[in-house]
Amino acid sequence: MSKDAHIVFTPSGRRGDFPVGTPVLSAARSLGVDIDSVCGGRGICGRCQIQVGEGDFQKHKIVSSCNNMTAFSSVEERYASKKGMKEGRRLSCQALIEGDLLIDVPAESQVHKQVVRKRADVREIEIDPPIRLHYVVVEEPDMHKPSGDLERLQAGLEAQWGLKNLHCDLRTLQTLQPILRKGQWQVTVAVENEKTIIAVWPGFKEKAYGIAVDLGSTTIAAHLCDLQTGEVTASSGIMNPQIRFGEDLMSRVSYVMMNPGGEKEMTAVVRESLDILIGVVAEEGKIERSDILSMTFVGNPVMHHLLLGIDPVELGGAPFALTLNSSIHLYASELDLNISRDGRVYILPCIAGHVGADTAGVILSEGPHFQDEITLICDVGTNAEIVLGNKHRLLACSSPTGPAFEGAQISSGQRAAPGAIERIRIDPVTLEPRYRVIGCDLWSDEEGFAEQTKDFGVTGICGSGIIEAIGEMFLAGIIQTDGIIDGSLAEKSPRVRSAGKTFDYVISESEPVITVTQTDVRAIQLAKAALYAGVKLLMEKLGVETVDRIQLAGAFGSHIDVKYAMVIGLIPDCDLARVQSAGNAAGTGARIALLNKKSRKEIEDVVHRVEKIETAVEPKFQEHFVNAMGMPHTTDEFVHLAGVVTLPPKKTGKSGGDGEDGGGRRRRRRAS
Amino acid sequence: MSKDAHIVFTPSGRRGDFPVGTPVLSAARSLGVDIDSVCGGRGICGRCQIQVGEGDFQKHKIVSSCNNMTAFSSVEERYASKKGMKEGRRLSCQALIEGDLLIDVPAESQVHKQVVRKRADVREIEIDPPIRLHYVVVEEPDMHKPSGDLERLQAGLEAQWGLKNLHCDLRTLQTLQPILRKGQWQVTVAVENEKTIIAVWPGFKEKAYGIAVDLGSTTIAAHLCDLQTGEVTASSGIMNPQIRFGEDLMSRVSYVMMNPGGEKEMTAVVRESLDILIGVVAEEGKIERSDILSMTFVGNPVMHHLLLGIDPVELGGAPFALTLNSSIHLYASELDLNISRDGRVYILPCIAGHVGADTAGVILSEGPHFQDEITLICDVGTNAEIVLGNKHRLLACSSPTGPAFEGAQISSGQRAAPGAIERIRIDPVTLEPRYRVIGCDLWSDEEGFAEQTKDFGVTGICGSGIIEAIGEMFLAGIIQTDGIIDGSLAEKSPRVRSAGKTFDYVISESEPVITVTQTDVRAIQLAKAALYAGVKLLMEKLGVETVDRIQLAGAFGSHIDVKYAMVIGLIPDCDLARVQSAGNAAGTGARIALLNKKSRKEIEDVVHRVEKIETAVEPKFQEHFVNAMGMPHTTDEFVHLAGVVTLPPKKTGKSGGDGEDGGGRRRRRRAS
Repeated sequence: MSKDAHIVFTPSGRRGDFPVGTPVLSAARSLGVDIDSVCGGRGICGRCQIQVGEGDFQKHKIVSSCNNMTAFSSVEERYASKKGMKEGRRLSCQALIEGDLLIDVPAESQVHKQVVRKRADVREIEIDPPIRLHYVVVEEPDMHKPSGDLERLQAGLEAQWGLKNLHCDLRTLQTLQPILRKGQWQVTVAVENEKTIIAVWPGFKEKAYGIAVDLGSTTIAAHLCDLQTGEVTASSGIMNPQIRFGEDLMSRVSYVMMNPGGEKEMTAVVRESLDILIGVVAEEGKIERSDILSMTFVGNPVMHHLLLGIDPVELGGAPFALTLNSSIHLYASELDLNISRDGRVYILPCIAGHVGADTAGVILSEGPHFQDEITLICDVGTNAEIVLGNKHRLLACSSPTGPAFEGAQISSGQRAAPGAIERIRIDPVTLEPRYRVIGCDLWSDEEGFAEQTKDFGVTGICGSGIIEAIGEMFLAGIIQTDGIIDGSLAEKSPRVRSAGKTFDYVISESEPVITVTQTDVRAIQLAKAALYAGVKLLMEKLGVETVDRIQLAGAFGSHIDVKYAMVIGLIPDCDLARVQSAGNAAGTGARIALLNKKSRKEIEDVVHRVEKIETAVEPKFQEHFVNAMGMPHTTDEFVHLAGVVTLPPKKTGKSGGDGEDGGGRRRRRRAS
Repeated sequence: MSKDAHIVFTPSGRRGDFPVGTPVLSAARSLGVDIDSVCGGRGICGRCQIQVGEGDFQKHKIVSSCNNMTAFSSVEERYASKKGMKEGRRLSCQALIEGDLLIDVPAESQVHKQVVRKRADVREIEIDPPIRLHYVVVEEPDMHKPSGDLERLQAGLEAQWGLKNLHCDLRTLQTLQPILRKGQWQVTVAVENEKTIIAVWPGFKEKAYGIAVDLGSTTIAAHLCDLQTGEVTASSGIMNPQIRFGEDLMSRVSYVMMNPGGEKEMTAVVRESLDILIGVVAEEGKIERSDILSMTFVGNPVMHHLLLGIDPVELGGAPFALTLNSSIHLYASELDLNISRDGRVYILPCIAGHVGADTAGVILSEGPHFQDEITLICDVGTNAEIVLGNKHRLLACSSPTGPAFEGAQISSGQRAAPGAIERIRIDPVTLEPRYRVIGCDLWSDEEGFAEQTKDFGVTGICGSGIIEAIGEMFLAGIIQTDGIIDGSLAEKSPRVRSAGKTFDYVISESEPVITVTQTDVRAIQLAKAALYAGVKLLMEKLGVETVDRIQLAGAFGSHIDVKYAMVIGLIPDCDLARVQSAGNAAGTGARIALLNKKSRKEIEDVVHRVEKIETAVEPKFQEHFVNAMGMPHTTDEFVHLAGVVTLPPKKTGKSGGDGEDGGGRRRRRRAS
């Protein structure tokens, strides 16, 4: 009898002694080393590749060589010739131990690999999908031992994969017999949560997919993901067709109130669009709809209810009662979505009547519940969702900011498209502006700007542009602390000009004339004050005076320059280096829930703990709102901000001189 | 502080001491006494009625009086005036303990009441339905403590009924908000298996229903049951519309083989008919479809697969592989059945490719797995399902008897309708017959027979009539042991007459002439031999020479005179007193599964243990079949039968005299 070989696996560091002849995969499994496999050790899937370390590894006290492993087998030859294999790689299910080995399991061979995210400040997504593929060989039927095809499939899954007592969905059952025979009793099965067989394919099936959906009031975004690698293989968006029933949520709820049965129409159209979107990403990803096994959804409460076919009318008025705030797990067919016959849908939990599954997605993506620091997350849209707290306490509310941030109700507002002003700087001495438009990299005062923009011109200001315009107008002294455009400057510059009782600031004089009016400034003031008041309410409830970091989520939050967001007082004072865009955090949350089963339990637990604040019934909300109308704020200090920009002297009143502010105190802010 | 009162509950005998002022229902619950309640102690449902024993009960060492209980309350007055209450009854949720009491819980107030069945030899059905109703008061939504309506309903169910972590189905969720508001936050909820909310009604809902379905190849029978009392409140039947695709199972499977996609048509038509049948029983029971929460199904494997939308083609040829043999639990909507929106379907497990959920139903109804005695159960139809065994071992098989027992392939055969001969006696001396027909209580030789049958005449022989005709012909010596009609008797009686190479027996000479031909006898011989051979195979496998009792199930089994079944050798010899009709045992099994949740687990476990015998691959089946062609059998003794009827001397061969029988032995049977 030969001596056992000593095997060390990296990066896990797990080690053990094994008899010569043991397959490397078996050794790894017995030590609990994380190595993937779909084919169950048959040399088909190539998921279990490993690499042998060569040399004397002092650290591990081992001398390792590929000579201590059986030679490249015919099964490996076949796999390598079909699919290709990197130099030095082996299939751990085929290679047998013949002596001491240091074996490296590369990241792509691990089941629980991590998806690296672009931002360094957020946690990585660990791949651990609820749905996994298993290749299985099924015993053929035998008249002498009658049993159902399902029962023999179950027996195979138990013997070959240790999966016990699996249930099988009806629509999969309906196709089971022909698939088993077509695959000649070798099939690949998709199993959800180690409990349910939700799909079966003849032979070996390599890939399974899921779609994460951010169901917004205006836009629906879908991301097709490879359930094994976590890779986003296709993304697409579509307008929410419910827009024809009302631009914002409340007008859609009103539509239902005025048109009984209207909720059914809205449910039907959004499901139809989702089904189209599924087709689009499937085509882009070059896969079949039947390869899509799972979908996850985030969305605000009204979108959430309408998707589910629930009348949202109760969300339209106090006490804003949700039908449910738990998560939901359904068949995709229950929502008329055509993916795999028994494909599943998971919808993240809502938090409160105005704080939906989109906010749950943001929390899951940003993970404030893991932090020591106090994190403020604002998902800015027609409605702003605000989350504040850390691992000890989390609070959430929503605040009705209105559509100003999305460019609506702004005189020269337009959607983000070529020709829209997105960046602007105003000379504080001359009050002359220069700007950049979407579709051109040059500033308006640079040579070639006119030439490069001649195809689309300069047509308006987009949402992020209006924030900068008002921020720069404030920094240049054109807008006073109280938001009034200082008419006295009309004498100094033709850019400030009278418009009856108030004044406008002219950014571009050529047609179309682009101006910022007093009404525009007021609309932005109201919107930013609503957001800030919500934030203040949560800070007060949490008992903090400052926040440690701020994440701006959502399409709008991703595009604005956080500095200007702070200059106009959209967000509270904070170290600017700690203020970041979180991108489409809600959508990322949906993707995490798609790829990691534990994250579902995690977010269900977290939202249960979130303290919900209803701004509409908080008496102090109004006071916070009024105080937040000032630039950047009527009463609050912006110490960090004052350290990076030169804030103008505080001035209010039509006179344009310094006046009393709402809080009755005077301050000066200077750059440090 | 007053002394505790001593309370004894009957019939349970549970006893305990309780403080004065305790509601009787609370006392009962704390002792685990089985008392029903839907309203949760609000005096609405009247389910918790009890009766106080008056007097000195030595046996229980207690002096009890209704004076030891609070007086009839206004809540009880209201209930009694609305719904009526028997003299002496009290609502145990309203009556408070004031002293020692002997309290009787009548059967109808118990949750686990038993349904008494007509036959004394079978176990009673214990009512313990998977679905129960719970009246619950739900907290109203509060903006200051945002939570979903579902979560508050769940909280109410936990606080008021101890039901934790209930899930709620989508279609119930869709109606939850308007129902809670219509009911003014008081609703009745249907909960399945203490796990899932499957229906909600505003206010108090008293009754919930289920339907047990026996899905036969020819007939579909549905029984509407009150889920609380177990009472069958309506029954109806409908022809299986699949008949137009083929009379028997194999011709339907052939239809699918010849017409790809034909299985979809057959699935659609049977589901449509089931949906019509649901409407019929709902109307007969004067209830809404939405009051039906559950359906259970039994059926043979082909019916089972077609109901589920599974192609039955694999059942049409060896190795006769079922898609699955486990039970199935589904939404009724998955089978296109319109009952309550989230109503459920439970389909009993199949056993083998030819032994279906109908046989599982028969086992559940007859309970051979509880017996010490060896029970033989035969469900006779176009295919016979046979179960043999006791609590130690159970074996099952099916045997292709063909349609002869159903009157098909019989020259004068007809379905059971007025004018069909169902009883017949033949004088062994004169060979003259007398008979009775369906629709008339007189025998044909009694006065008034012609008058009473003149509207429909004498038109043919039904399935049970043909068994008696052949049995009587054998007892009268007209048919020999080998099944040959003895032509030598033509000399003795004009009733026996030549038909070329063989002879007929004439039962009725007026038009239409009703005869039993040699071909008819052969058809019955083949059918009964197939059944008997299956039985013998199981007896051999079980290692028994005799059976202790026989149950004949199915429509045919219920109508035949068991004596004649034994005379022709359809079933093996047995004490005739222990041979009984089990009626529609399969349908009863479906009813048990509807009303008792434990029975589902029970039958799932039992079918798993059943040893399946495939007659088609058993080499000895053919031998048993050949030997079983004789009357009553070529080789087997019929000792018990010989004790009650005078069996004719054994004779074979065209000569009509005694000849060699198949087994080569001679015997004489005499009445004892």
